[in-house]
Amino acid sequence: MKNNKKISIKEIAKLSGVSVATVSRVINNNGRFSEETRQKVLDIIKKYDYTTNMAAKSLRVSKSKTIGVIVPDINNLFFAELVLEIENFFFEYGYSVFICNTAQNEVKEKEYFRSLDSKLVDGIICISSNLINPANFIKRNIPIVYLNNTDMKDYYCVESNHYEGGFLATEELIKNGCKRIVLLTNNKNASSVNNKIQGFKDALKKYNIPCYNDLILRLDLKEGVFEDSLDAINYLIDKNINFDGVFATNDLRAHSALVALQQHDIPVPNNVKIIGYDGTSISQYANPPISTIYQDKKTLATETSTLLLKLINEESKNLNKHLVIPIKLIKRKTT
Amino acid sequence: MKNNKKISIKEIAKLSGVSVATVSRVINNNGRFSEETRQKVLDIIKKYDYTTNMAAKSLRVSKSKTIGVIVPDINNLFFAELVLEIENFFFEYGYSVFICNTAQNEVKEKEYFRSLDSKLVDGIICISSNLINPANFIKRNIPIVYLNNTDMKDYYCVESNHYEGGFLATEELIKNGCKRIVLLTNNKNASSVNNKIQGFKDALKKYNIPCYNDLILRLDLKEGVFEDSLDAINYLIDKNINFDGVFATNDLRAHSALVALQQHDIPVPNNVKIIGYDGTSISQYANPPISTIYQDKKTLATETSTLLLKLINEESKNLNKHLVIPIKLIKRKTT
Repeated sequence: MKNNKKISIKEIAKLSGVSVATVSRVINNNGRFSEETRQKVLDIIKKYDYTTNMAAKSLRVSKSKTIGVIVPDINNLFFAELVLEIENFFFEYGYSVFICNTAQNEVKEKEYFRSLDSKLVDGIICISSNLINPANFIKRNIPIVYLNNTDMKDYYCVESNHYEGGFLATEELIKNGCKRIVLLTNNKNASSVNNKIQGFKDALKKYNIPCYNDLILRLDLKEGVFEDSLDAINYLIDKNINFDGVFATNDLRAHSALVALQQHDIPVPNNVKIIGYDGTSISQYANPPISTIYQDKKTLATETSTLLLKLINEESKNLNKHLVIPIKLIKRKTT
Repeated sequence: MKNNKKISIKEIAKLSGVSVATVSRVINNNGRFSEETRQKVLDIIKKYDYTTNMAAKSLRVSKSKTIGVIVPDINNLFFAELVLEIENFFFEYGYSVFICNTAQNEVKEKEYFRSLDSKLVDGIICISSNLINPANFIKRNIPIVYLNNTDMKDYYCVESNHYEGGFLATEELIKNGCKRIVLLTNNKNASSVNNKIQGFKDALKKYNIPCYNDLILRLDLKEGVFEDSLDAINYLIDKNINFDGVFATNDLRAHSALVALQQHDIPVPNNVKIIGYDGTSISQYANPPISTIYQDKKTLATETSTLLLKLINEESKNLNKHLVIPIKLIKRKTT
């Protein structure tokens, strides 16, 4: 039978014959100790059912050594790679990372904010283009950093230079002769999308190329990013709507466009040129390999994580609230 | 200033003017209540700093309405799709799902077991081929269900029929004339791998095809599944080691083999035939599309989740401890 009376760290240290600091390290899985020491401490903890107090302790000191990452879609390699980089970064500092996939669903995003809060995470990285204010769902005062979303003005944000990305992608198509360019993107009213579209429009303007409304495809999420884009390009082809270039705002959509064109035996890049966005392995290993705008996932993840860690450790002096990471054009075989 | 004295659910109910059951529903985000009710209850909770007690309550009743999923690599679409199906399933039942990516690293897997335990999840789905006994890291008595791993004899497991998968894949290559077949897989001593290899060997035996040791590639994880497989196939080609078929035990590896062969202008399927495993969109949208063994991700995820939910709800009577889901061959353009 377990003894359910409360026991302090001091008492555990005394009973296990080690220092309070060592007990703390064992409890937090943080720092060095022998397997023997761990076992001794864990035995005492188990005997006195210390779990309860661990949660209580975590509440007292507000450091649970866990963070949450809100992510729209781990099915998209860009997000998967970002999350893995974040996870790697925090693992080095002894943190566990809980990945919360929202499937771009606002209800889920809200639930995850609540749930991460109740699990006492030390901070949250939010990769989302939903305009949900976490303050409405998170009761504790914990740091939150946004990645690729500058719409949440009250929060720190690290983003790629999406205006430049949109501009360079469009310019690449124009310089290779495209005059009727499809913009294949989503329907979110989010900074990352809007900035790309502004770059697209400004590039067309600079080169005096008309912007056709029927070629701007802002898709709702229905079956999935890949399937929805495939349907959209198939629709244009089936309706004989003429186009000679596709700027897809992620590589998954660019790959969809390539597959749709190949299924209709329309040669790429001869008849239609394609450029993607993100720089994931999807574009690299497609056949033919797809030109793309490269987002520096490693730097995005590292800068976002560094920022969050500093905020968790209350080192918020002189921190830049908004960090912009350069993008670059990778020219492959589809432009 | 906050009032830090402890407050019970009963007191919250009284102060908010609603029933205890309603307070409980609001706290657990579970069931119906108006936004007004939620606000009233949350105001009281906030005023009396009830967070502390929420964790305590969660400890007492052992239902936190969260589960953890241990996953080896969300970069692999097979795992990403499984996790998304699990997440969808549990969302319908009001659960949040914490995804824990181990990058196949045993240390991380152990840390995540500990961390999920301390976060008081109600249960865990473990997708892993590491032979780590969770009982060494999880102190509470919570249900754990394994997916595609029958090595953990003490635990419930749902898996695809990997012996049949390995057999059918190999038979497909043999029936299309292959005599020197590369087996492209990992180095784990895990049931999912071993069963595929047994199927491979038995198919060779049945058709009197020799099994060449230098064509059995059991790769360590170095740079990544895709990159490692690319290197391995490039090595065979560069060393003029002859082969006319590749059975890759996942689609990512099959796609690597295709890319490596294409980079060397070796025609697929004319000179070398390829079959993958899993049935993800990688094989479907590769150019040419890759034949594969389809694992029924929806059924795997649903059966695993149903099992875990029943165990959480203590409905463990008449449950099958080991469930095998059929696979099927999908013939495309590479065999």
